[in-house]
Amino acid sequence: MNNILNIGIFGYGTVGEGLAHVLKNSEGIKSQIKKVCVRTKNKERNGIPQSIITYNADDILKNKDIDLVAELIDDDNEAYRIVKQALINKKNVVSANKKMLAQHLQELIKLQKKHEVSLIYEASSCGSIPIIRNLEEYYDNDLIQSLSGIMNGSSNYILSKIFNENTEYSKALKDAQKLGFAETDPSSDVEGYDTLYKLIILTVHAFGVFIKSDEVFNTGISNLKAYDIKIAKQKGFKIRLIGQSTKLDDSKINLHVCPKFVDSKDQSYNVEDHYNGISINGKFYDNQFMYGKGAGAHPTGSAVLSDISALEYNYKYEYKKLNLNSNLEHSNNLRLHIYISFTNFDQIKNFNFIEINEQFKSSEHNYIIGKINLTELIKHKHIIEKEKLFIATI
Amino acid sequence: MNNILNIGIFGYGTVGEGLAHVLKNSEGIKSQIKKVCVRTKNKERNGIPQSIITYNADDILKNKDIDLVAELIDDDNEAYRIVKQALINKKNVVSANKKMLAQHLQELIKLQKKHEVSLIYEASSCGSIPIIRNLEEYYDNDLIQSLSGIMNGSSNYILSKIFNENTEYSKALKDAQKLGFAETDPSSDVEGYDTLYKLIILTVHAFGVFIKSDEVFNTGISNLKAYDIKIAKQKGFKIRLIGQSTKLDDSKINLHVCPKFVDSKDQSYNVEDHYNGISINGKFYDNQFMYGKGAGAHPTGSAVLSDISALEYNYKYEYKKLNLNSNLEHSNNLRLHIYISFTNFDQIKNFNFIEINEQFKSSEHNYIIGKINLTELIKHKHIIEKEKLFIATI
Repeated sequence: MNNILNIGIFGYGTVGEGLAHVLKNSEGIKSQIKKVCVRTKNKERNGIPQSIITYNADDILKNKDIDLVAELIDDDNEAYRIVKQALINKKNVVSANKKMLAQHLQELIKLQKKHEVSLIYEASSCGSIPIIRNLEEYYDNDLIQSLSGIMNGSSNYILSKIFNENTEYSKALKDAQKLGFAETDPSSDVEGYDTLYKLIILTVHAFGVFIKSDEVFNTGISNLKAYDIKIAKQKGFKIRLIGQSTKLDDSKINLHVCPKFVDSKDQSYNVEDHYNGISINGKFYDNQFMYGKGAGAHPTGSAVLSDISALEYNYKYEYKKLNLNSNLEHSNNLRLHIYISFTNFDQIKNFNFIEINEQFKSSEHNYIIGKINLTELIKHKHIIEKEKLFIATI
Repeated sequence: MNNILNIGIFGYGTVGEGLAHVLKNSEGIKSQIKKVCVRTKNKERNGIPQSIITYNADDILKNKDIDLVAELIDDDNEAYRIVKQALINKKNVVSANKKMLAQHLQELIKLQKKHEVSLIYEASSCGSIPIIRNLEEYYDNDLIQSLSGIMNGSSNYILSKIFNENTEYSKALKDAQKLGFAETDPSSDVEGYDTLYKLIILTVHAFGVFIKSDEVFNTGISNLKAYDIKIAKQKGFKIRLIGQSTKLDDSKINLHVCPKFVDSKDQSYNVEDHYNGISINGKFYDNQFMYGKGAGAHPTGSAVLSDISALEYNYKYEYKKLNLNSNLEHSNNLRLHIYISFTNFDQIKNFNFIEINEQFKSSEHNYIIGKINLTELIKHKHIIEKEKLFIATI
């Protein structure tokens, strides 16, 4: 049944240190850290003895005593090389690198099969919420219709601060970084890329299709202005950054990442601070919701711990849906109800709305609420980015 | 890997019919219903051909073509006999009978091991929420500190109606029964026994201990009066019926079932209608919350479906924590902060409060808010029941 696992860790940042702490405080886990490979020399590292630190990847990758590699570094290219080599060298791998996984998952799934090892990555998506495991094990039938929610802890922390404490965007961002919620490069969090990567990973497990990131529209909260917040509040909404994956029909699926105006009936309305919350909608069970801490050393560390614990029992993802293979194709042909704000009407003069419900002009700012096809937004994505337009679905 | 499963169903009430409907609409599931055993003859049954109906249990239990028995009947004694015999006859079993499981789980776990079959029962607890699977697979380490929440859909439906629509208790109860949320005997729902059975089952998977139901204090919402609701509303609370299992220290655990005054910061505040919501608190990941439909034909049917789907892959609960065996013992030595209402002070004259925070007297009603040891409440349980006193924790 279960063996004592000897772990080699790559990276000793927030998550790595969190893992070491969590491991030390979990008596039930029959695992020990053998080696920790880091980049920067002569740096103080808490929670592990200096003797197990190495700067040479091969001390882990070629180490016959190590059964399990925990890849917890920021650099996605380096992470890809490490994970690939570890699988080839027949080691089980736990990874938390969503960007790397969202790019290379197809290849890595094949590799793990070929080399008869296991690659699992619960900590890559939504921190401590066991969402991948649930999609794999419990929502493994074809009833699921959509999956959506708050998948990025640091942008949600920022939105919470802005809405509940009237903190300014830049101050809230700095606080998030100080607390270790935000990534090294915050643009990935606030521009929706981090959410996008997680959404791609979750879609593999929810719907059995791997969608490339460049096919998916994403916009974030970095263009959010004070008056957008004022309008949202006036209308009784909070703003949340939502990733959404929806089956449009038997052959089409759409993924997109966009801020959303949510009212108090929406599950995500009450998800504050660095928490994440995922709604799963399906035939028969309707709406299900999972909530938990989405960022930070210990929540992410405990997600890695659960993966390590699963590997003690030789757990691997079955990818049942990917194997059954659905004929689902990605489509952006989808009507959205949006709020868009801008400083002058010229900026959006080429945006072809299906229907305009509200139009507001003032010396200070302007906005439109209306229906538009997602393909239209994609067509004008360069304008949205260049002119820093804020968009939210309603 | 996976075979086509031939299913024999016992019982064709709300859940049985829900399962047949869900199965018919799930293409991915490689299972078919071979036989359905029911008690009442000459009754119209939707969704299955007359030809597969039988009144003789042995047509399923001794049928070599049937691999999987789905036990979906109300009568816990009969359910026990069926499940036991099915396991002995080497059939995998899916059960939704919480009362039966809460009484016989220890014996049935041994039986399934002895006969090398699998007994799983996700549908027994919290309807469509995959709580047992998560406790088994994801929260399988020793970090978990407490588990609590709304586990009974019909009493929550009643409380929702009362709080949101000012419906009277008896009318709300009738509505719940009409909609098929309430059990045949509603006393189990409203007096907290249904919650108690589920809590016992969940505690096996969360903490690895089997606690007998007669050791656990439970009180429900059947004594709730109009003025209790008024007081709760005045103080900004809603009332929820909560089952709670808490590790008091390394060697003690407490289970109890009691209504609770919850404010808007409590996750269960927003759980309305026949939904259930479970909070899991643990070291490092802190609070996690799972939400979904807790009653009704299709949500429960889809939970049974997920179990059937798991059996296609030969899934079984590992009972890791039960195997590791904890030395946890049940203790009722726990200080509770409660609201208790009564018609005259004589009723509670023997209740020994640690501390009284509020005391209200009027011609219409009286209440006390204060701290009391749970052992005190247990000592006076006969008075609570006889005098129909309403108690809620705060």
